[in-house]
Amino acid sequence: MEAELKGLLDGLDSLKRSLVDSNHHASIDKLRLRVDHLMDLAKSERVRRLKVKDMSAEVVDSNPYSRLMALQRMGIVENYERIRDFSVAIVGIGGVGSVAAEMLTRCGIGRLLLYDYDKVELANMNRLFFRPDQAGMTKTDAAVQTLSDINPDVVLESYTLNITTVKGFETFMSSLKSKSFRPSKEDSGVDLVLSCVDNYEARMVVNQACNELNQIWMESGVSEDAVSGHIQLLIPGETACFACAPPLVVASGVDERTLKREGVCAASLPTTMGVVAGLLVQNTLKFLLKFGNVSPYLGYNSLKDYFPTMEMRPNPHCLNAACLERQNEYLLAKPARDAAAKAKMEAEASSVVETPLHDENEWNIRVVDDIELEKTDATSSDALPEGLTRELPRADEFQDPAAGVTVSFVDDLEDLRRQLDALNKI
Amino acid sequence: MEAELKGLLDGLDSLKRSLVDSNHHASIDKLRLRVDHLMDLAKSERVRRLKVKDMSAEVVDSNPYSRLMALQRMGIVENYERIRDFSVAIVGIGGVGSVAAEMLTRCGIGRLLLYDYDKVELANMNRLFFRPDQAGMTKTDAAVQTLSDINPDVVLESYTLNITTVKGFETFMSSLKSKSFRPSKEDSGVDLVLSCVDNYEARMVVNQACNELNQIWMESGVSEDAVSGHIQLLIPGETACFACAPPLVVASGVDERTLKREGVCAASLPTTMGVVAGLLVQNTLKFLLKFGNVSPYLGYNSLKDYFPTMEMRPNPHCLNAACLERQNEYLLAKPARDAAAKAKMEAEASSVVETPLHDENEWNIRVVDDIELEKTDATSSDALPEGLTRELPRADEFQDPAAGVTVSFVDDLEDLRRQLDALNKI
Repeated sequence: MEAELKGLLDGLDSLKRSLVDSNHHASIDKLRLRVDHLMDLAKSERVRRLKVKDMSAEVVDSNPYSRLMALQRMGIVENYERIRDFSVAIVGIGGVGSVAAEMLTRCGIGRLLLYDYDKVELANMNRLFFRPDQAGMTKTDAAVQTLSDINPDVVLESYTLNITTVKGFETFMSSLKSKSFRPSKEDSGVDLVLSCVDNYEARMVVNQACNELNQIWMESGVSEDAVSGHIQLLIPGETACFACAPPLVVASGVDERTLKREGVCAASLPTTMGVVAGLLVQNTLKFLLKFGNVSPYLGYNSLKDYFPTMEMRPNPHCLNAACLERQNEYLLAKPARDAAAKAKMEAEASSVVETPLHDENEWNIRVVDDIELEKTDATSSDALPEGLTRELPRADEFQDPAAGVTVSFVDDLEDLRRQLDALNKI
Repeated sequence: MEAELKGLLDGLDSLKRSLVDSNHHASIDKLRLRVDHLMDLAKSERVRRLKVKDMSAEVVDSNPYSRLMALQRMGIVENYERIRDFSVAIVGIGGVGSVAAEMLTRCGIGRLLLYDYDKVELANMNRLFFRPDQAGMTKTDAAVQTLSDINPDVVLESYTLNITTVKGFETFMSSLKSKSFRPSKEDSGVDLVLSCVDNYEARMVVNQACNELNQIWMESGVSEDAVSGHIQLLIPGETACFACAPPLVVASGVDERTLKREGVCAASLPTTMGVVAGLLVQNTLKFLLKFGNVSPYLGYNSLKDYFPTMEMRPNPHCLNAACLERQNEYLLAKPARDAAAKAKMEAEASSVVETPLHDENEWNIRVVDDIELEKTDATSSDALPEGLTRELPRADEFQDPAAGVTVSFVDDLEDLRRQLDALNKI
């Protein structure tokens, strides 16, 4: 658009040079002004967010990361900015995968690898993310268009291919192995693979790739009736792989696609897919940034708002050879794992109480030790700031304080041990 | 843009009329062609989805409603197209409200009323929905821009106002009462109000409006540390209102905003807000389209993936006068409610088994009665279609069939009663 307008300006200028009448010059100058205005309009229509070099916690309206960096001050995440180091591969950019990609993009993930072979259709408009004007584009191209506008800091790699073909699988594998983004990374080139595909065959292909690469991944799915879904964490050798516990009926020999009937499609809802994408990326953030409990499996039954959880150990009779290899490695590494866990526990025990938990303390929270508490009048410590009233009675107006047990203040672990020994001798 | 280009064309035409040299005419014609091309470009940049008169279940790529209408064939929703009759008001177009609005828009809701007084900032980009190029626009204007592109079938009403001001509250109330969209609707002009605000004061205002109008609403919220949230259904007089069980500490007299500190902001995540919006709109769809169980309260603790549920009865000592009025009305209407419930049960009992459940039967499911089952060989009825194998043994290879109890086929309820009487006499 801008190049076209520049051409128009040049045309007007050369016409002006060929004219002698000053009235004509004035008309052309007026036309020039119109084109200048159009130029401004064209530019303003594609105002893009500038790249941001470092994530700042500064609380200003222009900072796209202030609400994320606040997770550190709130004590949820230790080092949020680490998110920029991570690469996540998303296989399947449909109703779940596209929303997962947008969430990770808005969270400022370092690099996203996107895989899909399909095109955007109007029939996809009942899920979040794609726009009607993107109908006809490949899902990967449309995703890159939208995501790079939202956050130009994210490195986007798009692969328009079908991973279930021989050539597609080769490209899939080599892209997962490539360490161009973070050469120092161990094992594969990505930190996590998210499977957001809609069929069994593609899931088995992701499973095969991740078992071969010893790559941790998460699987997701939404039922054909649109009202339930699940996410699952798969750690090769440590948890069940996708082939360890196959569906009760497995299509063997028959092409899954021939089971589909003409004129019949699965139902889908933006709600169910949005929830599943949210649960999937939340689990991803917990896994990458090490906070909360990473769920091994979480289901979502929307009709009853029921969320089943479970853990699945690997199947020693799994039909997937790479899975059996990973299971063996996991068993062989047990002594090393136990030793590392023991060393970590000991290190944590010895470092306790040495440094304050938070150097910055914006909330003015302070630790009051038991001795100080005993000196303080119990009712006055419960007093509210001016202007605040208590709507309900305090709990201790109903309950008697637990009586009889007094624990005196302990200086260190040695003291505690001595007191325990003394108690044991009684 | 298109109007500007039209002006440019007119300018060129009048310049052409004032020139006599045919060389000049040719130059101007060339410039005209350039402008025509720009016109095409401008038009193609805003290709918009056309309005769709009736929702069709036809399975073609160009049908934006095929995956939603499939909910009928799957037996989840009886009449999906009814969604076009409903009006939903969303108060607060932030991280939860904007995503809720997009989900309802993609579901093809009839009419959305959007309320917010705030502007889009880059600091909002860590949540879904708004784009960086919308920074500086009001949230309501930006939402209408995005939503009307996604689905032009939805009637959008945008109210850029603060409901906590006297004037804002008046407009809020009159917009909820207006029945221009569906004049035949009883009570208020909307079917549901969704509260997606981020402060106590605004929640109390929504509560007041809904208690006064006897308007069913749903409340939503996300914690300041970004890792938990909730949704809640509030039916005036029947469930607790927002004032029935106030937070333990209530700011009275003090302006809530003065409690906020300079340079400190709440954390937020697109995941938590996306999940809460998804649960909220799923509950909305279940409520409007009458499927599944509408949750009275559903919490989301993302660190542990824990989803608490509860029910809250109204507080007979609630400080909200309108709530007490609704509670009285609800108690007074109990005999009528009981009679209606009884009549419904009786009607359902008498109509049972009279008509087939599904006239259309695309899945070729047939009801096999017990007599037919007894005749059939048990193993052959369990046989799989050609090409399918069973991965795991059948359940009955492990379990003995429950022995001793045989129930013969019963023709009607009278038969059953006679058999029960006979058993009781033994």
